[in-house]
Amino acid sequence: MSTTLSRVRAAYARVAAVDRPEIWIDLRPQDEVEREARALDARLSEGEHLPLAGRLFAAKGNIDVAGLPTTAGCPSYAYDPESDAPVVARLRAAGALVLGTTNLDQFATGLVGTRSPHGAVRHAYDPARISGGSSSGSAVAVALGIVDFALGTDTAGSGRVPAAFNGIVGLKPTRGLVPTAGVVPACASLDCVTVFARTLPEAERALAHMASPPDRDLPPLPQRAPGPWRVAVPAREQLGELDEGWAQAYEAAVDQLVAAGASVREIDLSPFTDAAAMLYQGAFVAERYTAVGSFVDKALAADDPSLDPTVAGIITRARDIPAHQLFADTDRLATLRTRALAELADADALLLPTAPGHPTLAEVAADPLGTNARLGRFTNSTNLFDLAAVAVPAGGTNGLPFGVMLIGPAFTDERLARIAALLQPETRLAVVGAHLTGQPLNPQLLSLGARLDRTTTTAPVYRLHALATDPPKPGLVHVGEGGAQIETEVWHLPAEGVGRLLTALPRPMTLGKVHLADGTSVPGFLCEPGALTDAEDITRYGSWRSYLNER
Amino acid sequence: MSTTLSRVRAAYARVAAVDRPEIWIDLRPQDEVEREARALDARLSEGEHLPLAGRLFAAKGNIDVAGLPTTAGCPSYAYDPESDAPVVARLRAAGALVLGTTNLDQFATGLVGTRSPHGAVRHAYDPARISGGSSSGSAVAVALGIVDFALGTDTAGSGRVPAAFNGIVGLKPTRGLVPTAGVVPACASLDCVTVFARTLPEAERALAHMASPPDRDLPPLPQRAPGPWRVAVPAREQLGELDEGWAQAYEAAVDQLVAAGASVREIDLSPFTDAAAMLYQGAFVAERYTAVGSFVDKALAADDPSLDPTVAGIITRARDIPAHQLFADTDRLATLRTRALAELADADALLLPTAPGHPTLAEVAADPLGTNARLGRFTNSTNLFDLAAVAVPAGGTNGLPFGVMLIGPAFTDERLARIAALLQPETRLAVVGAHLTGQPLNPQLLSLGARLDRTTTTAPVYRLHALATDPPKPGLVHVGEGGAQIETEVWHLPAEGVGRLLTALPRPMTLGKVHLADGTSVPGFLCEPGALTDAEDITRYGSWRSYLNER
Repeated sequence: MSTTLSRVRAAYARVAAVDRPEIWIDLRPQDEVEREARALDARLSEGEHLPLAGRLFAAKGNIDVAGLPTTAGCPSYAYDPESDAPVVARLRAAGALVLGTTNLDQFATGLVGTRSPHGAVRHAYDPARISGGSSSGSAVAVALGIVDFALGTDTAGSGRVPAAFNGIVGLKPTRGLVPTAGVVPACASLDCVTVFARTLPEAERALAHMASPPDRDLPPLPQRAPGPWRVAVPAREQLGELDEGWAQAYEAAVDQLVAAGASVREIDLSPFTDAAAMLYQGAFVAERYTAVGSFVDKALAADDPSLDPTVAGIITRARDIPAHQLFADTDRLATLRTRALAELADADALLLPTAPGHPTLAEVAADPLGTNARLGRFTNSTNLFDLAAVAVPAGGTNGLPFGVMLIGPAFTDERLARIAALLQPETRLAVVGAHLTGQPLNPQLLSLGARLDRTTTTAPVYRLHALATDPPKPGLVHVGEGGAQIETEVWHLPAEGVGRLLTALPRPMTLGKVHLADGTSVPGFLCEPGALTDAEDITRYGSWRSYLNER
Repeated sequence: MSTTLSRVRAAYARVAAVDRPEIWIDLRPQDEVEREARALDARLSEGEHLPLAGRLFAAKGNIDVAGLPTTAGCPSYAYDPESDAPVVARLRAAGALVLGTTNLDQFATGLVGTRSPHGAVRHAYDPARISGGSSSGSAVAVALGIVDFALGTDTAGSGRVPAAFNGIVGLKPTRGLVPTAGVVPACASLDCVTVFARTLPEAERALAHMASPPDRDLPPLPQRAPGPWRVAVPAREQLGELDEGWAQAYEAAVDQLVAAGASVREIDLSPFTDAAAMLYQGAFVAERYTAVGSFVDKALAADDPSLDPTVAGIITRARDIPAHQLFADTDRLATLRTRALAELADADALLLPTAPGHPTLAEVAADPLGTNARLGRFTNSTNLFDLAAVAVPAGGTNGLPFGVMLIGPAFTDERLARIAALLQPETRLAVVGAHLTGQPLNPQLLSLGARLDRTTTTAPVYRLHALATDPPKPGLVHVGEGGAQIETEVWHLPAEGVGRLLTALPRPMTLGKVHLADGTSVPGFLCEPGALTDAEDITRYGSWRSYLNER
């Protein structure tokens, strides 16, 4: 079976397996997508170059996909687009296949993912929690492995908050880099089309095909002064109230950037949070009425059940905001923006938690406006200030993903992604034999960028055997009862180094989980069962080095 | 023991273990470096921020290190510098420790690593081959895992050719980004200080501390047009004669960039190779006489045994080049540079093999000038044209490393490193159980960015057992005789995804090497020996899926 076709079938099997119908507004019929896959494979076999061949994606339900209604999460608003939105057309022209349109907070109004007549989109891993929104279905479709990437939109944070909650990447490009034609506007002057993916390279690769020369001239990017990346962080108290464990998770992300060589400087976050508060409390929300207000008014008058009551309330309340308030708010925003850019002048990026916490569905139901307003504390100001942002996973807390954002001036998108890449995890590796310091294979670890963390022992549940390998290596075997503590070095290894190590690892050595004396478990060297036949039990030496010295 | 101190001791142990005295011109006494390590650890424990704390490096022997003579590979030329070269001082101020000065082609004149009275530096893994030069000792010290990074210099390719031969990264920054004060000049108007490391992040991190605002104003970097990375490649015939297997290795690197989303366009390489030929054949070599000619003349007259005869010949022959030829060559170079930049106008970087081949020590001895001239075919023009370059490993050929360069306009250093990062290897992964398509853990693979390669079977040497895990998983065991073919999916996984997978992998699952039906071996899932106790042998089903369906 052709690659693309098998990927399409796997995706539809995954749709069925995860049983999350609320992700989709319109999922295309499988046979129709399979026909496209076959046609694509035929073009590939004729030698055509299709850089996104076989990549599967979903589009948020406020983005035109030819053949499907554009609903913006409101069935009665639906229209049948004559063609794909340019961003969808570009991706399809590059060989990507669109599976359908995804659920969203109606009219992209919300950061929660619950404001939809198609149902609340539940979190990818914890169905009691919200997915985040407004690009809820797109984020969960990516997190659950249905599609390779998905399109969202971001006005106040809709392309980032659901990325953080679901442990995926969300790129919020500079305004204007990706065309918004064919997208139902939320606030037309602020809207950006965004992309979700499970890895940064996948998201960047999709974005490369979505972006185009913007209608404003690209200003030259100022050269940054040579030196380590300079990352701005706010004082702890300026982060405000965070969910339990989130301050620690944020500080761990700061520490990881420092460990990767970045220098950190503290800035005043108040221009950012002050502007964030203006997005729904001030006059800017009136732009949502400009977009869909007359439709909402009529639908309300007709008791249209398609309307989400919270969204309808926000939009209709925006009708009566006077223009003089908009003049005043615009002035105030300009002042705040000047202050914000001054705070960033001495930094390459601002690091923030993507959101201050992760509410449950019940918490949102109890206070729809309050929980939503809190979620936008760190994201709301980004588009108001015309900044770029990259949201990436940064470990977890309380068993759920935790995410951070890197924010920088317009057109620093590439630079932000580079800094975000520094947040990729290191792996620890327990070593008991030929990779120990001074032993023959230790240089292999060093060549992979490994650093020695500490010397310790395993938990007393292992036995050690001398294997008939060249060079000689020990085999560490978990036995539980009757085991002993074996001398162990724990190394830090870049995550990509593990791939290189595994590729080079010969039989019968394996990598698995090793229990240490301190009760923790880390990846480490083990061996295949067959290697133990006729292998001498050398547990009594307590370490490979002692065995080599004393045997 | 403190971390830095233990790292210093490990490094000196490694120096002894590798037994490559030719790497060093002056290795500092271990006790002196240990004192520095202790002092550094004391500062760290007082809370001082030292971003390169504990990183160990070496400096090429033409770079001033206070306390060691600067020899440039010529003992009779030696002087005792009053202070560290600024680049060394910056690294030490950031917490890095210098272990000593390394061997080089005398006066940095050569790309071979053999032109030194301290002895030819042999290749890191194949002692019959050259290390490449002129930064020979620095490259091999890094490749053998003695130091974390090392300083080189690059006039014609000295910071890149030895990186390629020894399978490491070499960054050749834009001229002027890193100060060359305190460095014995080769061609003062072209020289750059470079950095070697085993990984791109390590090299970039060191470079961040080496670079400084240059004495020329930094021009703003033009925004590149949005879209995929555009990589220029020459027509195959313009690469000229390459060593056996090198054209295929180069094409594999091109393919890898395309697979990672880059678009490739063919350019005319002739301005680059024409300029390369001018470096030693034309008038520019006279600048080497400007630097050390009067010393070499006197030393020759005194029959000084410190002189390398090949180097002395090159430098003295440069004495009589007339200035009018330099005017003519400068004119011609300007024309070639205009043509070269026009070729690059529609690309973000030029991808080239770093060198056309890898000679043996014997081949260099037989034809010192001819082999050397060939080595510089792709590197010589970079500094003549004022370009930036990043040399990275790109797989191997004939059992030795193969390397490529990404070359771009001045000050595109960051961008080149980003594109080079796309060349990081993917890992294949053989899956026989819960990670198969449609099985419960398959989403974990997808979330790591995995792509299905093909469905096949193992070689007929395995047995499959049903383990008592939750969710249920099979244990694949290599038995040789009496084994069977087991249904297997082979996936592609980004190298960094393997680290994440291993970190998340619970006992008793392991990753090791799996033999496939087609005779190849790829990494894949296995299990610990203890898991097989009481586990049902389900080999007769031939696949985990069949077992689940039919049991």
